[in-house]
Amino acid sequence: MSETTIAGTAAPSTGALRPLGLTAVTLDEGGLLGSWQRRNTDATLSHCLKQLEESGNLDNLRRITDSAPAAFRGMWFADSDVYKTLEAVAWELGRRPDTALEQFLDATTALLERAQDSDGYLNSYFQTDHRDQQWAELVWSHELYCAGHLIQAAVAAARSGVGDRLLRVARRFADLLVDRFGEGGTDGVCGHPEIETALVELYRVTGHRPYLDLAARFVDLRGHGLLGDEPKFGARYYQDHTPVRDADEVAGHAVRQLYLLAGVVDVAVETGDASLLDAATRLWESAFDTKTYLTGAHGSRHRDEAFGDPYELPPDRAYAESCAAIASFAWNWRMLLATGGHRYADELERVLYNGIAGSTSLDGTHFFYSNPLHLRTGHDGSHEDAPSQRLSWYSCACCPPNLARLMASLQSYVATTTEAGVQVHLHTAGRIATPHGELAIRTEYPWDGRVTVSVTPATPGAAWTLALRIPGWCESATLDGVPVTGEYAEVNRVWEPGDVVRLELAMPARVVAGHPRVDAVRGCAALLRGPLVYCLEQADLPDDVLVDDVTLDARAAVDVGAGDLAPVVLRVAGTHRDPAGTPLYEPLAASAPGTPIALTAVPYFLWANRSPGAMRVWIPLTA
Amino acid sequence: MSETTIAGTAAPSTGALRPLGLTAVTLDEGGLLGSWQRRNTDATLSHCLKQLEESGNLDNLRRITDSAPAAFRGMWFADSDVYKTLEAVAWELGRRPDTALEQFLDATTALLERAQDSDGYLNSYFQTDHRDQQWAELVWSHELYCAGHLIQAAVAAARSGVGDRLLRVARRFADLLVDRFGEGGTDGVCGHPEIETALVELYRVTGHRPYLDLAARFVDLRGHGLLGDEPKFGARYYQDHTPVRDADEVAGHAVRQLYLLAGVVDVAVETGDASLLDAATRLWESAFDTKTYLTGAHGSRHRDEAFGDPYELPPDRAYAESCAAIASFAWNWRMLLATGGHRYADELERVLYNGIAGSTSLDGTHFFYSNPLHLRTGHDGSHEDAPSQRLSWYSCACCPPNLARLMASLQSYVATTTEAGVQVHLHTAGRIATPHGELAIRTEYPWDGRVTVSVTPATPGAAWTLALRIPGWCESATLDGVPVTGEYAEVNRVWEPGDVVRLELAMPARVVAGHPRVDAVRGCAALLRGPLVYCLEQADLPDDVLVDDVTLDARAAVDVGAGDLAPVVLRVAGTHRDPAGTPLYEPLAASAPGTPIALTAVPYFLWANRSPGAMRVWIPLTA
Repeated sequence: MSETTIAGTAAPSTGALRPLGLTAVTLDEGGLLGSWQRRNTDATLSHCLKQLEESGNLDNLRRITDSAPAAFRGMWFADSDVYKTLEAVAWELGRRPDTALEQFLDATTALLERAQDSDGYLNSYFQTDHRDQQWAELVWSHELYCAGHLIQAAVAAARSGVGDRLLRVARRFADLLVDRFGEGGTDGVCGHPEIETALVELYRVTGHRPYLDLAARFVDLRGHGLLGDEPKFGARYYQDHTPVRDADEVAGHAVRQLYLLAGVVDVAVETGDASLLDAATRLWESAFDTKTYLTGAHGSRHRDEAFGDPYELPPDRAYAESCAAIASFAWNWRMLLATGGHRYADELERVLYNGIAGSTSLDGTHFFYSNPLHLRTGHDGSHEDAPSQRLSWYSCACCPPNLARLMASLQSYVATTTEAGVQVHLHTAGRIATPHGELAIRTEYPWDGRVTVSVTPATPGAAWTLALRIPGWCESATLDGVPVTGEYAEVNRVWEPGDVVRLELAMPARVVAGHPRVDAVRGCAALLRGPLVYCLEQADLPDDVLVDDVTLDARAAVDVGAGDLAPVVLRVAGTHRDPAGTPLYEPLAASAPGTPIALTAVPYFLWANRSPGAMRVWIPLTA
Repeated sequence: MSETTIAGTAAPSTGALRPLGLTAVTLDEGGLLGSWQRRNTDATLSHCLKQLEESGNLDNLRRITDSAPAAFRGMWFADSDVYKTLEAVAWELGRRPDTALEQFLDATTALLERAQDSDGYLNSYFQTDHRDQQWAELVWSHELYCAGHLIQAAVAAARSGVGDRLLRVARRFADLLVDRFGEGGTDGVCGHPEIETALVELYRVTGHRPYLDLAARFVDLRGHGLLGDEPKFGARYYQDHTPVRDADEVAGHAVRQLYLLAGVVDVAVETGDASLLDAATRLWESAFDTKTYLTGAHGSRHRDEAFGDPYELPPDRAYAESCAAIASFAWNWRMLLATGGHRYADELERVLYNGIAGSTSLDGTHFFYSNPLHLRTGHDGSHEDAPSQRLSWYSCACCPPNLARLMASLQSYVATTTEAGVQVHLHTAGRIATPHGELAIRTEYPWDGRVTVSVTPATPGAAWTLALRIPGWCESATLDGVPVTGEYAEVNRVWEPGDVVRLELAMPARVVAGHPRVDAVRGCAALLRGPLVYCLEQADLPDDVLVDDVTLDARAAVDVGAGDLAPVVLRVAGTHRDPAGTPLYEPLAASAPGTPIALTAVPYFLWANRSPGAMRVWIPLTA
């Protein structure tokens, strides 16, 4: 099994688990994950291509050498949106041919070839109107960040077998970075991490050690004040306040922190640096024990798009950026591969089905940048950072193409392999080809907990272990009717063609409370079922009963049934109290009696797809 | 009674109540308000003078004409800190002579005279390195904002009888504004309101109608998109999204909104514009019914220093800027004068004793810019916007000199007069001279609710009404032993020298809850007594019992007793539960039993004066 260099996203050369090849898994379009990937193919990708043209991102690159009428448009790091889209296109082409996408890849690669400086430098903002500032201000320039996304696109193209030219562009830039920032060169780091993971991936594709060395150098240079003290947000903003090896708390801009940690794991794995992996593990515990939303999202503050203090997790002002959710997904995937730790797969699932899935509209062309867990009646949705509904694009459009590149490669994250067998981490309908054999998986997951796996072994009569994940949320599971416990339901046996294994995960509705220090959700509960977080939406209530004014009768049974918006909705008894006339502050007293009201909770990831209106994940409990 | 032109801060020519002259009230330094004013005299004012020199504000002005070594330093609106300090100095000199302050006033006035352009323009940022941008970008320039503070300083100097020269400087600038922005001139408004109230006050001092007309014009020009749509925060940020006459919700940057509303009331009163006053009243209800902290503070969001949605009032991320509290104080004072409405005096008191008082350290030289109602253990206090302790100065130092100008004129807000009598709004020890006679007030308020008023009538045997405010928080009051109800305890009689009236306000501890829509304080209560909000501080708990982990047994009696930090502290039974090992999210269940713990609550305004540590106003209730 030496296929790691053609594996999907993130292909470590070592680790507890090994990823499968890019085309090893086919998602069934009837399954939820498959339907998301299909929507990405059908709607999101072409939407991104159109927006890159309309928003000026491609024109920005054309301005370097071609005739292009417009002035520079968008954010100074707008190139990164092009690269993320290229990466999405590459992953897509790795799964299936598509003439339009091939043309985009070819034309954009040619554009990049023309635009690239002879020394390898490539950044449309600095090459056009800001040549004098090139490399002058790494704090805000995002030059290495953009380079990182170029490299990731090239890695995707290389792994998909469609991008030798793009890989050459990326390598020319990477070689320049090695010359400039490598050992003996400039001591500098980028204000926005991203280059670290990209360089390791480029090393994995090329085997060229200087890329790995530079990534390791960037990891260790950060935290020593090279970026200076950011005047408004402080050095924590870009994780330059302390070396990652010494840090014990995730801090600052959430996307920056999480991209950095993905790179940290990559470096740790490839260099065999156990202490660096220990640091990542310590920071993982800081993040997931004290700073993670119920949806798996991160970032509690809008001001600096940052993690807050431990347990500071306001649902209404959750920043919970889509890119941070994607970064968390990438980090957890790397932790899972490196260690085989079940908890990482749990977080992979949680953030995918909630924090990530909720960011895209049903039509695949509208997106949330910030993903709150609560929207009040009367919310001022006029700000791009906290709109009431998904928008088709953003002035800082980092999220939509980021979602596209994840969805285009989603099949990569379903399962892994080892010498001993196959591990299925995300249950979904589809086919999984592994060195040990092929699995055909039938399931309605996450709507239903039954998973049927039909096995066609590569070598009939060979013995290996099929490990099916029992999610952390699941309290009762059976394998072929026999109760199983533990982190994975393991079947270690001699396999013959036609063998079938049936896993059944009990999936009752769950009523969950927050840690007592999570002040913002005190006196509330949330409804969940399986991996899905549910929420109340105004659309499911009469106009004269505001979401703001209902409480949950937690002692009542939760009814699991079919709904219009989703195959499964949750129904529970609640109470409505009209607070008209109640002063803002008044003497503490027992609640007035209310009126019974039936509440319907729908999957959080589907919110804001009907009429605009209020929503809440955390529901106050009837006193 | 035509003394209005020599009255204290805000001197409307008409209205339900009339302010007293600047020197009419003498605060007793043994009283809390008097002690604050004394501390301002002894510590804060000289601290501000020193900081203006050290931070470059004065050098910035010297750079216009004098030799000054330094480059421009600080915020581009740093002149306003000089003007606010000048205003504080002027109010101070109105009460007592002080050679050092007179020298500062004279020297700074001379500096301004030299610096001022021949046409009246004065702004050190634009006169030095940014001449080409003068008047070019009102959205962010703060040119009119700075002009407003210059004018307010000059008004204070004029009313205090110490500033004819400063008044001439201000009038030259104001005349330029009338030429440039008056009827027939440029349609423009400042990104930061402040000029409106200043121009009305200048009109009141000078009787020059064009100043009032320009203020009215600025009020009505705002809300029509002249500032453009602020790309990040939207037009609401500077209240340009809708005309104030149409607005029904306070919105955007809190200081901007509240300064504007002070000016709106000033314009409405001087022009007799009832519909404009109606708009201010409507917005007052939006603010105080749905967007005000228990401390009277405003501003729920750090990102844009802004009001949030209705009921969005997180204690931990309260922005609650000191300047917004001061602005609310100014607005409520104007509403009180205009209408006589008791509720405005209630808010005046609430914000003064909590939101404002808490922003200054016991030593008078350290200040909070943001005034949260909750600070967690483990708070990252490294950001200037959310430090763990008061700082001696800020990179944007708007708050400290703002506090100084309020404290220097604090006596102005204690009482008012009418033809019918005298109204005392803020109970504090001191002497009040009025046209009807002099009141000598003895009281330990707010530590004790007994207020004794000795009256020396101007005309013995004359009949008039002494009205003593019964605060909204007070449920039981007596006047000379007889129960009284209503908004003011009124004594309408013939007065003879030596007459004494005794008001007694029952002042038990109160346990208060938030409106059910204030999600951030659900399941919590706050402790108050009289006008004071109380809080728990880590300093009053054993090291192994974190503030984060205690709950309040609300059914237990609250014991009112003497404390070390304050004359009155509150003691109440609570429960401690160590949450170690509790997951971030878990199935809803009854709380584990805890350990009884005695809790001591101290006045909020005194927090962070001992060791640094966690604090909370809203205390979770024991289940």
